[in-house]
Amino acid sequence: MSILSLSLAFLLLFHGTCLALRPFQQTQNQCQIQRINALEPNERVEAEAGFTEFFDSGDQQFQCAGVEVIRHHIQPQGLMLPSYINTPLMVYILQGRGYQGIMLPGCPETFQSSQQAEERGFQDRHQKIRHFREGDMIIIPAGAAHWMYNDGQEEIVAIVMLDSTNEVNQLDQFHRRFFLAGNPKRSGQETPEEGSGNIFRGFDLQMLSEVFHVDQETASKLQSPDDTRGHIVMVERGLQVVRPPIRIQGPANGLEETFCSARFTANINDVSRPDFFNPEAGWTTYLNSFKLPILQMVQLSAERGVLYNNAVMSPYWMTNAHEIIHVTRGNMRMQIVNNEGQAVFDDMIQEGQVVVVPQNFAVIKQAQEQGCRWISFRTNDNAMMSTLAGRTSAIKAMPVSVLMNAYQMSPEQARSLKNNRMETMMFNPRSRY
Amino acid sequence: MSILSLSLAFLLLFHGTCLALRPFQQTQNQCQIQRINALEPNERVEAEAGFTEFFDSGDQQFQCAGVEVIRHHIQPQGLMLPSYINTPLMVYILQGRGYQGIMLPGCPETFQSSQQAEERGFQDRHQKIRHFREGDMIIIPAGAAHWMYNDGQEEIVAIVMLDSTNEVNQLDQFHRRFFLAGNPKRSGQETPEEGSGNIFRGFDLQMLSEVFHVDQETASKLQSPDDTRGHIVMVERGLQVVRPPIRIQGPANGLEETFCSARFTANINDVSRPDFFNPEAGWTTYLNSFKLPILQMVQLSAERGVLYNNAVMSPYWMTNAHEIIHVTRGNMRMQIVNNEGQAVFDDMIQEGQVVVVPQNFAVIKQAQEQGCRWISFRTNDNAMMSTLAGRTSAIKAMPVSVLMNAYQMSPEQARSLKNNRMETMMFNPRSRY
Amino acid sequence: MSILSLSLAFLLLFHGTCLALRPFQQTQNQCQIQRINALEPNERVEAEAGFTEFFDSGDQQFQCAGVEVIRHHIQPQGLMLPSYINTPLMVYILQGRGYQGIMLPGCPETFQSSQQAEERGFQDRHQKIRHFREGDMIIIPAGAAHWMYNDGQEEIVAIVMLDSTNEVNQLDQFHRRFFLAGNPKRSGQETPEEGSGNIFRGFDLQMLSEVFHVDQETASKLQSPDDTRGHIVMVERGLQVVRPPIRIQGPANGLEETFCSARFTANINDVSRPDFFNPEAGWTTYLNSFKLPILQMVQLSAERGVLYNNAVMSPYWMTNAHEIIHVTRGNMRMQIVNNEGQAVFDDMIQEGQVVVVPQNFAVIKQAQEQGCRWISFRTNDNAMMSTLAGRTSAIKAMPVSVLMNAYQMSPEQARSLKNNRMETMMFNPRSRY
Repeated sequence: MSILSLSLAFLLLFHGTCLALRPFQQTQNQCQIQRINALEPNERVEAEAGFTEFFDSGDQQFQCAGVEVIRHHIQPQGLMLPSYINTPLMVYILQGRGYQGIMLPGCPETFQSSQQAEERGFQDRHQKIRHFREGDMIIIPAGAAHWMYNDGQEEIVAIVMLDSTNEVNQLDQFHRRFFLAGNPKRSGQETPEEGSGNIFRGFDLQMLSEVFHVDQETASKLQSPDDTRGHIVMVERGLQVVRPPIRIQGPANGLEETFCSARFTANINDVSRPDFFNPEAGWTTYLNSFKLPILQMVQLSAERGVLYNNAVMSPYWMTNAHEIIHVTRGNMRMQIVNNEGQAVFDDMIQEGQVVVVPQNFAVIKQAQEQGCRWISFRTNDNAMMSTLAGRTSAIKAMPVSVLMNAYQMSPEQARSLKNNRMETMMFNPRSRY
Repeated sequence: MSILSLSLAFLLLFHGTCLALRPFQQTQNQCQIQRINALEPNERVEAEAGFTEFFDSGDQQFQCAGVEVIRHHIQPQGLMLPSYINTPLMVYILQGRGYQGIMLPGCPETFQSSQQAEERGFQDRHQKIRHFREGDMIIIPAGAAHWMYNDGQEEIVAIVMLDSTNEVNQLDQFHRRFFLAGNPKRSGQETPEEGSGNIFRGFDLQMLSEVFHVDQETASKLQSPDDTRGHIVMVERGLQVVRPPIRIQGPANGLEETFCSARFTANINDVSRPDFFNPEAGWTTYLNSFKLPILQMVQLSAERGVLYNNAVMSPYWMTNAHEIIHVTRGNMRMQIVNNEGQAVFDDMIQEGQVVVVPQNFAVIKQAQEQGCRWISFRTNDNAMMSTLAGRTSAIKAMPVSVLMNAYQMSPEQARSLKNNRMETMMFNPRSRY
Repeated sequence: MSILSLSLAFLLLFHGTCLALRPFQQTQNQCQIQRINALEPNERVEAEAGFTEFFDSGDQQFQCAGVEVIRHHIQPQGLMLPSYINTPLMVYILQGRGYQGIMLPGCPETFQSSQQAEERGFQDRHQKIRHFREGDMIIIPAGAAHWMYNDGQEEIVAIVMLDSTNEVNQLDQFHRRFFLAGNPKRSGQETPEEGSGNIFRGFDLQMLSEVFHVDQETASKLQSPDDTRGHIVMVERGLQVVRPPIRIQGPANGLEETFCSARFTANINDVSRPDFFNPEAGWTTYLNSFKLPILQMVQLSAERGVLYNNAVMSPYWMTNAHEIIHVTRGNMRMQIVNNEGQAVFDDMIQEGQVVVVPQNFAVIKQAQEQGCRWISFRTNDNAMMSTLAGRTSAIKAMPVSVLMNAYQMSPEQARSLKNNRMETMMFNPRSRY
């Protein structure tokens, strides 16, 4: 009973956020794509302790999907300054580890320093801090301020998908980042100039001083007019925060939590817990709102996919979502086919490249010699995949006589089409022939 | 308790699909319509065993409602080839009977052949097949592959409404059909040419052969390059499928079902079970998400309406939906009035014609001598109708003194306006005068 | 158990209405605002017993928020004629009292005259009538016909926010009012002319007479072609309706009600029941869908705010909504800052003026000598506010070491920034220094 009530409250809470619709314009026939190219970043913004790469938001395939993709590189002891954005984010940690804060308005400061720490002069109390590591997918709601710190030994590489056409974004058709600190360069700028400041720059200094009840020197530091470090800054002796020892998070069911303790992270890189596994072909893990309830709020999902050498993924289409695929290791050949039976993409996609598969377009993926790994973002929190070959495919679901008549085949041919491939999702052609 | 949990899961499942928003552009002021015309199909695509008629998707009234309308004609033993579309469909069976398959990804093949059948060499196992008959409304979710077969003695006539602006369509402002088989002609094409193939045409033949683990001849039949039968093909000796005997479906409450056994069909042509009935004027049956839960997913509803000779429907407006009216027998006079008090339509609508009533526009319908039947599609799963005359009308809901002052009437006139017409929805003026 | 079932039904009911999506176009980059101005009405439409003021719907800040604002002035014994609109409305009663009817299709006429009244010749029965008074916020769903009457001694002043981009509006990017009576002048018209009639004007007179079963004279009064009183008319001896004695409504929990008895009104002007209160700075009351469930259907919320003389509101941004602020008494200085750190507004906003704060833009408000009161409409039914200073702010939520490194501060400065201002939302700088 109380669980049900809570779940209702949960639904209500999410609705409030989800249903607030202010749609933004997309230019007409955005997905009438005749040709898709594998994309690499076309711009880079440097900072003291790292850099961010931008994929071209104006490219037709991103316009079709209504999303943007960027990639952060954060050096060890690098701190990405706090900021918030008008779109929800999915952040995939491709490499490295660290921790981050997502500031939720009205939630309590639950992390407080121990008595020993206070005796040593270190005293603090702040909101929850979340560890992350390679393979984590982090969800950041629209408008939520957040920062990120690298406390590991290697560079953090984070692939970020920004869902510009999400209904919670009522502001703009592209993402806009509001910095709470620093004086960062922006994409498209050569040097830090007027107009690239953080939000405190726009306020009157005297008023800031009154509001925070601090002296003018402190208030002027909020505005940081002379900061040249950029959006990722170096923390000289490492960041000191209150935090528990690192451990891998256990499963959650989404009902015992309130919004303040909601889970924003899940690891999808663990080969020991895949959703699909074929020892000869590869494995995949899905992350949708049944696993991570916050995804219902942002209406997005993801897949981590691995194909072993030469393995093939069953041809499929997504029934209700676009798919944004970023290859993270190796490469694969992809064919993407539109409703006129034409291949709009028939090429290799290499490590570090991105391709968008529009909703309903049919796809085949085949890994090359060294195999292939990718992360795929999907524009629906329960994106559904319909396969064409294998045990759970549309072809298998049809009666033999429908296949015979549709394809003008003999009964034997129709049966072989339906039954020869009994694996579910991935095959290794070589191991079967 | 378990019923409630299930219903919550149901809600969650549907939400995942419903809330994924990628709106598409409509040109500005689409519904600033000064003149509406009754439409007939303006194009026809022929096939071996039938044809499809298209209403002009570019017409202003369809642009306003954000929908498209087509009409299939399938001959006895005709099979409409499997395909999927980027919009949800509502298919009203105006005439004929048959069965259809909707392929749901991941759902089991629950229909399997009996031992006797297997002894006779007919062996198969496939997903559920659904009978349909005259008066059925079939709901097909966006991206779900489906086929349809005529096993009756007369031509099937199916009126199809495609909801292009549905939020689950993230692809295009018009519908796009992805064929799984054949080499169909498309709307706008004179002859089957390059680019009109099914989705297998875009894939490499060798890869198809590997993926399905079949020989190249079978794989090449998937691509069907030389098929000239079009999108509806003749099944020479009739289709053999595993299926239970035909029976009329009983009522369902929507809670005992999982998605795989969800009901996609309801009959709304049964005069013995109307929602409103007036023996002197006519009857109507509504189909909304309270009756057929899948409608919550596609956010559409429908009405089957019948007016007897010379009967009148109370003037009304739809508070939260557009209405797409297709007359299926007889004819009626309609008046449609905009917010400036101007009639944008004041004409007869004949059998086979379509008219769109924009949201909030006021309407009167009067059947002619032979009466009138229609099917009405509505762009909201709980479309609400507000009537102006009769027992449940807005006029009846107002105090007499408001009417007196609003219309500068005597108390007697106000009372007669409120009380003279005590029927609810439909009247027969002649029988009352 | 029954409460839960009811709440599910409630959710289902609301969904039906909420999820029906037909988005309308907004021109590109609507919120790329470089300059915001405080607005005053730029048009006025006069009527016999009052007038309506219109703010310029074409102004960039309204285009950004996707809303419109108007202001009604209704004299004592003035009746605003019944009408309905294609958008949901929030109506804030700034001054005066009266009662109103919202006609809900299919709901019963629950107010009926007493036997004594009938003996005196006054006999009536109609739908529920709702009292309203100063400080009430009234919600009117899209397409719901409604009227309003002033039974008090002073002019009613009502501030109305029309949510044109609400998903239930499938009709037009601006609001359109459909009058059920009168022959009102419209915005943009000098004199009542052709085309400004109520919806009955577009219907055939003979058909109206048949439909209502009244004589032609009564029917022609429905069309009111010669009515010159405009949209607010004088009721000479006062309106006589069936109604209970006025009382202030008690709290409701939203579950014991059906749609027909749903609550559409809440008072948010009661200083004895604020959500936030600081005796030195001011108070605010929120109205969201947790308090008034109907707000979930219209996806809007509101705030009543009061700052005492010279008090300041903590700088904040709305994470998921635009904010439309109407000052109702006094004035305040506002600074609004965009994502480039530029103040797009730095000015006084006076009584009667309106300013839009776009989603995610940062704001500071400071009342002047005489204090300031405002009403704020928000385009999300659970709009969330993230403050920058004070106990629950983003700055307070961050570790000291993050602040030190982000702002290049000493530990002491970071601690003072975090801890010097311990109030939550509003401060009085003078009282603290």
